[in-house]
Amino acid sequence: MDERTHEHAEVLVDWSARVERGDDVVLSVAEGAHDLAVAVAEKLGERGANPLVTYDSDEVSRAYLRAHDGEFGTGEHELAMMESADVYLRLGGGRNTSALADVPGEVRQGYATATAALRETRMDTDWVSTVHPTRSLAQQAGMAYEEYRDFVYDAICRDWEALAEEMAEMKELLDAGSEVRIEKGGTDLTMSIEGRTAVNSAASVAYDSHNLPSGEVFTAPHATEGEVFFDVPMTINGKRLQDVSLVFEGGEVVDFSAGTNEDELETILDTDAGARRLGELGIGMNRGIDRFTDNVLFDEKMGDTVHLAVGRAYDACLPEGESGNDSAVHVDLITDMSEGVMEIDGEVVQRNGVFRWEDGFEV
Amino acid sequence: MDERTHEHAEVLVDWSARVERGDDVVLSVAEGAHDLAVAVAEKLGERGANPLVTYDSDEVSRAYLRAHDGEFGTGEHELAMMESADVYLRLGGGRNTSALADVPGEVRQGYATATAALRETRMDTDWVSTVHPTRSLAQQAGMAYEEYRDFVYDAICRDWEALAEEMAEMKELLDAGSEVRIEKGGTDLTMSIEGRTAVNSAASVAYDSHNLPSGEVFTAPHATEGEVFFDVPMTINGKRLQDVSLVFEGGEVVDFSAGTNEDELETILDTDAGARRLGELGIGMNRGIDRFTDNVLFDEKMGDTVHLAVGRAYDACLPEGESGNDSAVHVDLITDMSEGVMEIDGEVVQRNGVFRWEDGFEV
Repeated sequence: MDERTHEHAEVLVDWSARVERGDDVVLSVAEGAHDLAVAVAEKLGERGANPLVTYDSDEVSRAYLRAHDGEFGTGEHELAMMESADVYLRLGGGRNTSALADVPGEVRQGYATATAALRETRMDTDWVSTVHPTRSLAQQAGMAYEEYRDFVYDAICRDWEALAEEMAEMKELLDAGSEVRIEKGGTDLTMSIEGRTAVNSAASVAYDSHNLPSGEVFTAPHATEGEVFFDVPMTINGKRLQDVSLVFEGGEVVDFSAGTNEDELETILDTDAGARRLGELGIGMNRGIDRFTDNVLFDEKMGDTVHLAVGRAYDACLPEGESGNDSAVHVDLITDMSEGVMEIDGEVVQRNGVFRWEDGFEV
Repeated sequence: MDERTHEHAEVLVDWSARVERGDDVVLSVAEGAHDLAVAVAEKLGERGANPLVTYDSDEVSRAYLRAHDGEFGTGEHELAMMESADVYLRLGGGRNTSALADVPGEVRQGYATATAALRETRMDTDWVSTVHPTRSLAQQAGMAYEEYRDFVYDAICRDWEALAEEMAEMKELLDAGSEVRIEKGGTDLTMSIEGRTAVNSAASVAYDSHNLPSGEVFTAPHATEGEVFFDVPMTINGKRLQDVSLVFEGGEVVDFSAGTNEDELETILDTDAGARRLGELGIGMNRGIDRFTDNVLFDEKMGDTVHLAVGRAYDACLPEGESGNDSAVHVDLITDMSEGVMEIDGEVVQRNGVFRWEDGFEV
């Protein structure tokens, strides 16, 4: 086993999930994540937690979903398990990212609807989602297996304490600010962040952050005006969106285009009223991620990028008791900021990929 | 996938577990049982059941157990899951039958004690245990992989309805009888079965039978007298017992010997008072099993064999409200009856592997 797999497990159990003695842990293991499961089980043993290991196999799901008549029930046993769980650890990493490709969309949707309570309950645990580097994910990233492993561990095995401190600076600026402006070729966008709270997403439940890797600061913008061009391609619902452009007026998308699969973009924006408004502005600050791999878990955290999501906002960013931009979707789109400017209330915070507290920042 | 894997899944879901629409099913998948899990998931989809798939990995268990300080807790989430489950399907089939070899016995024992409630709860479900043929199990059986697959499917893909009918004849004889005698070279043993009820173990929860394959009729004998020689080797707690001989007086073992690992036999018999009495007399009637493979799930069901277990008896064999021979152990030992005689109340029921209702039976 790669020595870094043990480091990954330690970061996950101790930094991210903060597992303690006696915690009831659901450990969800994808088909290709066996080695990481072994390493995590060792850490859970050391901490004196109680793991229940589940098998998250796309091939098993496919066989089940395709054979079912579509009138799905809810497994009371799974709900009971989740209600009693303290921690949920999802170890992704399959053997074929297209394993569910021939399951009709309405069947997946029907299953998702029937099991909504399960996901809600899972969100009440200290949940963390991570991935084990598999050949399938390497292929999706267009990388050799060894190369991809280096990429994943560079993103995950970081000094999270130090990054959390740096991100705290960005959070402070956003919390104090009223308006964010992003400006680069094809992009001039302003968003209000008045009254919103930023989340320092430092890959730990202690920071309300549930992805490993993470490394972004995000908030919930509103009253968006202007145009934005997303130069980073994203695969959404199995379709690759490239060169997406959105035009906002009064907080809503009034015009859009895409270099590929524009119809998919239209379908997303037409989901509901909330799908035409922004739910998230995220600032990628994980410099361990140095390239795009067509996997949002990594891409949106990449240093020197900004992502905007149309659809649902996170409650954590909103005033107590207020609910976010209501929508059934939350679709992230990414723009490269290595040649661009981000301002808060007219003051430049990042120029050409350099934050104002970093060496080399040009005033 | 081997076409017989689908047949295996169908026998398991329909004949063995009798899964119905809306059943909450725990599907436990061993490391090497992925293909069978896919086939079973398809059947569960067809039946409209709700599966929760768990991962039963010896390597994950080993890592956890070895890292733990030994003060094990009970996972309330796992208990809650099992309490809500209607059906539990265990798909065995690992990648290394020795994967737990370096976990100290007292650690395993400590974990088993801490999780006793979980096993009790599992026994209240419609549970069925089966195995997927893996290379590891083929190796243990001393067989090539393809050869072993044929062996497993011959044992599992049977006309269970017909075998259940034949076994019903044997059950009738045992229920009506008072004394069983087994006689062959080195063996002359009599057991009382007065007041006991035989179980027609036809690999289905509808028959109180929880193994696939099964194919045995068993009861709970008492007042055992005489000597018995077990010519089939068995691996118990990782130790191979060969040529075991037991001498009974007044229902208890008063003398014993073994060709190998006699100390292990002694440890078993010294566990508690019940460990020196018989808990089970089983008559193997599955002719799809034609050789010994050092796996009790198969060996004890083999046609033309009889097995006796020292230790705990099954409640199903005893008068209502009475508990069986109390013991912490239940260790099966097998004797070949292809050259021997079994009598019930002095009447020959089987001679040299032929039952009295079969062609070729010599009166």
